Amino acid sequence: MQTLNLDLGDRSYPIYIGQGLLQQPELLTEHIRGKTSVTVSNETVAPLYLGSLQPALKAYKHSAVILPDGEAHKNLETLNQIYTHLLEAKADRKTTLIALGGGVVGDMTGFAAASYQRGVNFIQVPTTLLAMVDSSVGGKTGVNHALGKNMIGAFHQPQAVIIDTDTLNTLADRELSAGLAEVIKYGLIRDPQFLTWLDANMDALLARDPDTLTYAIYRSCQHKAEVVAADERESGQRALLNLGHTFGHAIEAAMGYGQWLHGEAVATGMVIAAELSAQMGWLAADDVNYIRRLLARARLPVDPPSDMTGEDFMRYMSVDKKVLDGSLRLILMKAVGESIVTADFDADALKRVLRREL
Amino acid sequence: MQTLNLDLGDRSYPIYIGQGLLQQPELLTEHIRGKTSVTVSNETVAPLYLGSLQPALKAYKHSAVILPDGEAHKNLETLNQIYTHLLEAKADRKTTLIALGGGVVGDMTGFAAASYQRGVNFIQVPTTLLAMVDSSVGGKTGVNHALGKNMIGAFHQPQAVIIDTDTLNTLADRELSAGLAEVIKYGLIRDPQFLTWLDANMDALLARDPDTLTYAIYRSCQHKAEVVAADERESGQRALLNLGHTFGHAIEAAMGYGQWLHGEAVATGMVIAAELSAQMGWLAADDVNYIRRLLARARLPVDPPSDMTGEDFMRYMSVDKKVLDGSLRLILMKAVGESIVTADFDADALKRVLRREL
Repeated sequence: MQTLNLDLGDRSYPIYIGQGLLQQPELLTEHIRGKTSVTVSNETVAPLYLGSLQPALKAYKHSAVILPDGEAHKNLETLNQIYTHLLEAKADRKTTLIALGGGVVGDMTGFAAASYQRGVNFIQVPTTLLAMVDSSVGGKTGVNHALGKNMIGAFHQPQAVIIDTDTLNTLADRELSAGLAEVIKYGLIRDPQFLTWLDANMDALLARDPDTLTYAIYRSCQHKAEVVAADERESGQRALLNLGHTFGHAIEAAMGYGQWLHGEAVATGMVIAAELSAQMGWLAADDVNYIRRLLARARLPVDPPSDMTGEDFMRYMSVDKKVLDGSLRLILMKAVGESIVTADFDADALKRVLRREL
Repeated sequence: MQTLNLDLGDRSYPIYIGQGLLQQPELLTEHIRGKTSVTVSNETVAPLYLGSLQPALKAYKHSAVILPDGEAHKNLETLNQIYTHLLEAKADRKTTLIALGGGVVGDMTGFAAASYQRGVNFIQVPTTLLAMVDSSVGGKTGVNHALGKNMIGAFHQPQAVIIDTDTLNTLADRELSAGLAEVIKYGLIRDPQFLTWLDANMDALLARDPDTLTYAIYRSCQHKAEVVAADERESGQRALLNLGHTFGHAIEAAMGYGQWLHGEAVATGMVIAAELSAQMGWLAADDVNYIRRLLARARLPVDPPSDMTGEDFMRYMSVDKKVLDGSLRLILMKAVGESIVTADFDADALKRVLRREL
């Protein structure tokens, strides 16, 4: 097992990464404060892994909420199911929630923990690659609104993140690829050597070689932890972690949540960011092709939905959280492996890229 | 105008109290950071006072959300109306919300501000006595769940509280009395001299004498600011501010939100707390009668609903936020003007009091 620490003063917490961690009850129990614990999972993950947590939880008053699976259910209505369960279970302010599942379960459980009785503790137990390398670390929680993704939420840090890489054995291929999009993202933001490593090891990653996957997860979490520790509330460099997300969120919202997986939309969003960066003269055509090829090798989509117009993009992007006082900020690439946040881009170039007039 | 400061380090903020403050645009504009501002009000208050804010807000991209009036609407569904408006208005992370109304508007606007795009600024402009002396100060925000009051929420401090006492001129008598319950509460918790003053000035308060009301508001806000500054997150003495609330919340929930006003339920709850304190031997029968008489003089109910059983109370109280690890903590009175938080009370005495077997 490897352990990283996310350093946030008195809200610091460990990230455990390794095989068979669900079989180590003390990793969980060490971080449960009160006498009551409620696990939130979904109908896909619960039958596979909820039982593994039982030995750890038998000393607590414990129950589980099983949500429907998928991004389409990441909304206030499903969140209310969690609140109702907590109230029926008479969960108090010392209750610890456990998020067992992917990013949707983690984000909703985290926001339920942030807002139930004005805040209770929670532990992240991610079971998808995307949740392991990105959403379970850093304290961003929330739900979607019909008019925009993650528009309702809170910063609320977990007590611990427990990453059992064995759970990846049951992950669908499409979900594995979606997670790889966020892994590749760290390379594109701040680590060209990691990109080279990913390029060299893509076949092993897709074949789910345990050591290769563990290294990719460890390195990704290390990047995430460094960035979040430096800028928890996203007043600066944390925004870089949204590379591809402004475009990706527009795709997700326009297509209907759950049609495109988040990682798939981000992959295409990163290609769009690369294309605009090339229009700005920062990337060469070869750089864009390298990025497209790497994402495609990870079996990710690299072109926007054919029925989505440039105007569709602009409409959904206008409510993006990176709009400040009406001006859109984008994450673009100065070089392969070096991204920046900027409001200083050519608006006409953006329109050309979104209209696919390249 | 008088100004108090709630001292919370870099989250400190001023509380302005006086007549005609809605006609002083700079009090608002000083605390609006971005270019967009959204006022949340309700259908009773908006026709009376929304216009007064217009001169202050004309320099901003400004719009208003008008909610239905009443505690019955303090829920996730109404909250979602605020989110929808914010997204349609393309409100960004620098948007400032303005809560113009009573406690329901303030609590919901505050929680919308806490959770919209993971947190934006807001300003409290309370227009009821209860909101002025209690709910607008201290950063408790949230909505009700069908199974319990204020069960969903966040701590989120406003940028400023602007109390224009002129707005009390349009307040219904019943709402004025409900506010007086929370004013009397401060006396019962920590200020016996203030109780004596309230007793001596009750007629002037009910006659809405401006100077008398202003002093009552100032003194109440001073108590609230002191307690919150010492214990923002309610790990200790802030819980005292919930005197009468555990019983009161049970009444509100059992009768259906909005049937009993919050202040009315708290008044009766404080009588129940006094009765239990007498059962514990801490108060004399005369003390309980003094408290009943003072509240009754403020035209507040001092007996629980006749159709509410002791079992009804216990059921609703079992999910109260002051339950910790299954044991109920209550705020009781060691003397008139001195309250304590305790889990160390006689459970049989509690049952006798709730069953009205006195």
